[in-house]
Amino acid sequence: MSDPRLARLSLNQRTTANWSLREAIEGAVAAGLRSIGLWREPVAEVGVEVARRWVDEAGLRVSSLCRGGFFTDGDPARRAAALADNRAAIDEAAALGARTLVLVPGGLPPGDKDISAARSRVADAVAELVPYAHERGVTLGIEPMHPIYAADRGVVSTLAQALDIAEQFDARDVGVVVDTFHVWWDPDVLTQIARAGERITSYQICDWITPLPPDALLARGMMGDGHIDFQELTRAVAKAGYTGDVEVEIFNADIWAMPGEQVLATMARRYLNLVQPYL
Amino acid sequence: MSDPRLARLSLNQRTTANWSLREAIEGAVAAGLRSIGLWREPVAEVGVEVARRWVDEAGLRVSSLCRGGFFTDGDPARRAAALADNRAAIDEAAALGARTLVLVPGGLPPGDKDISAARSRVADAVAELVPYAHERGVTLGIEPMHPIYAADRGVVSTLAQALDIAEQFDARDVGVVVDTFHVWWDPDVLTQIARAGERITSYQICDWITPLPPDALLARGMMGDGHIDFQELTRAVAKAGYTGDVEVEIFNADIWAMPGEQVLATMARRYLNLVQPYL
Repeated sequence: MSDPRLARLSLNQRTTANWSLREAIEGAVAAGLRSIGLWREPVAEVGVEVARRWVDEAGLRVSSLCRGGFFTDGDPARRAAALADNRAAIDEAAALGARTLVLVPGGLPPGDKDISAARSRVADAVAELVPYAHERGVTLGIEPMHPIYAADRGVVSTLAQALDIAEQFDARDVGVVVDTFHVWWDPDVLTQIARAGERITSYQICDWITPLPPDALLARGMMGDGHIDFQELTRAVAKAGYTGDVEVEIFNADIWAMPGEQVLATMARRYLNLVQPYL
Repeated sequence: MSDPRLARLSLNQRTTANWSLREAIEGAVAAGLRSIGLWREPVAEVGVEVARRWVDEAGLRVSSLCRGGFFTDGDPARRAAALADNRAAIDEAAALGARTLVLVPGGLPPGDKDISAARSRVADAVAELVPYAHERGVTLGIEPMHPIYAADRGVVSTLAQALDIAEQFDARDVGVVVDTFHVWWDPDVLTQIARAGERITSYQICDWITPLPPDALLARGMMGDGHIDFQELTRAVAKAGYTGDVEVEIFNADIWAMPGEQVLATMARRYLNLVQPYL
């Protein structure tokens, strides 16, 4: 019998990056989880239909599919390619029954210093994708990213910006991803989580650790190893009405070097101590 | 004859960290600059009076003294020690005739995850220091820091937050430091620069480079090597009414490894291309 307190905990499969999709599904089930966050690349390795069958047979929900987005380039050909890739991602999210397709906006195009224009192109791209996503019943989740990534990964830096875009559409079509790593520092975070309300399509958790590891893309820590107040953020997300899964997404070389079973045991324990009581 | 277009360019001495104070003063003069930003530690090595004499004899202004602050600890003894150290820094800034004392707020105290409380303590500390600074004619400059440093260096993450504190006092007593590295990503930066107006006590420049160097504290780049739009930010600072010096402050191991003369030549050239035309 799995611990009922783990009913909303989800393993984002990048947390155990060295596991195959099959191993991640089996590992999640063995740890008593009922949900998993998938990435397109490992899904593509086995095909969407096989991936869907595996998660169904394992009795898991797909809390999110990572990721669409990267549509900040103004060049018409690259922009068209990005939108086509996003439509493919929407199809995959629909086929997997994913709660949301996570959109990582993308950074500044090479040599381009106009961050306002790049931000506008994010809003335009979302607008262009909404009808396609709506027809397929997929909710787009705009993920604001920590300003450390504003130049090269995500020009949408705050929940307020993400909501300014999302609120132009029906909440079933466009929401926002609240990832503790990206938003914890924001002086306005509690207000914006309350504002988000039903638009929160995913709650992702990991910690901000110091000193920051040398590779900024692998700088995330296990909950409890860093500086984030999970109680406050989790209470705010719960108060906003979020009833979905809580996905642990950690990019960290040290954690990737650990046996996956151990990572899941630690994340379940930390979740029970630091997060679950405040949901 | 020095180029009159360099009249407002200042060398923050940490940009040439391997130079002594004497070398930095001589290097600044040789490069045709009229202003220098000093740090307390190298000033202390020769004593404030000697440092003042050297800069006066060289005909330089002191654009800023770095730095006070680091007053986020709630422990009474450590807090008292931090305030005493800040009073000493105010005395030094007065003795040097520095345009402003830069305040780096400080991060979360060890084991403390309450960033709101730490932010409140920054406001309290500034309030406590204002009368002392006022009597000595020193303007305190609150420096909002990039969220990458929110945990361990500066809990004030945006210009808006810094201004919320500064505006409780007379503009001659408390202002804000606009450092391109810290603020460039902020979706609200242009509005907040306009709001700051006469409260801008220092304009510091350097670039945001990618990939981010491994040591997050040495992640700054030479203007033009990264992603920041200096034209837009400089125009905004000028429009806000800022007429002071423009200080180049770069912490970067590669730049520190270069001969100081070469660093100054590069920074002067980049300043003339990317910044000075928009002042």
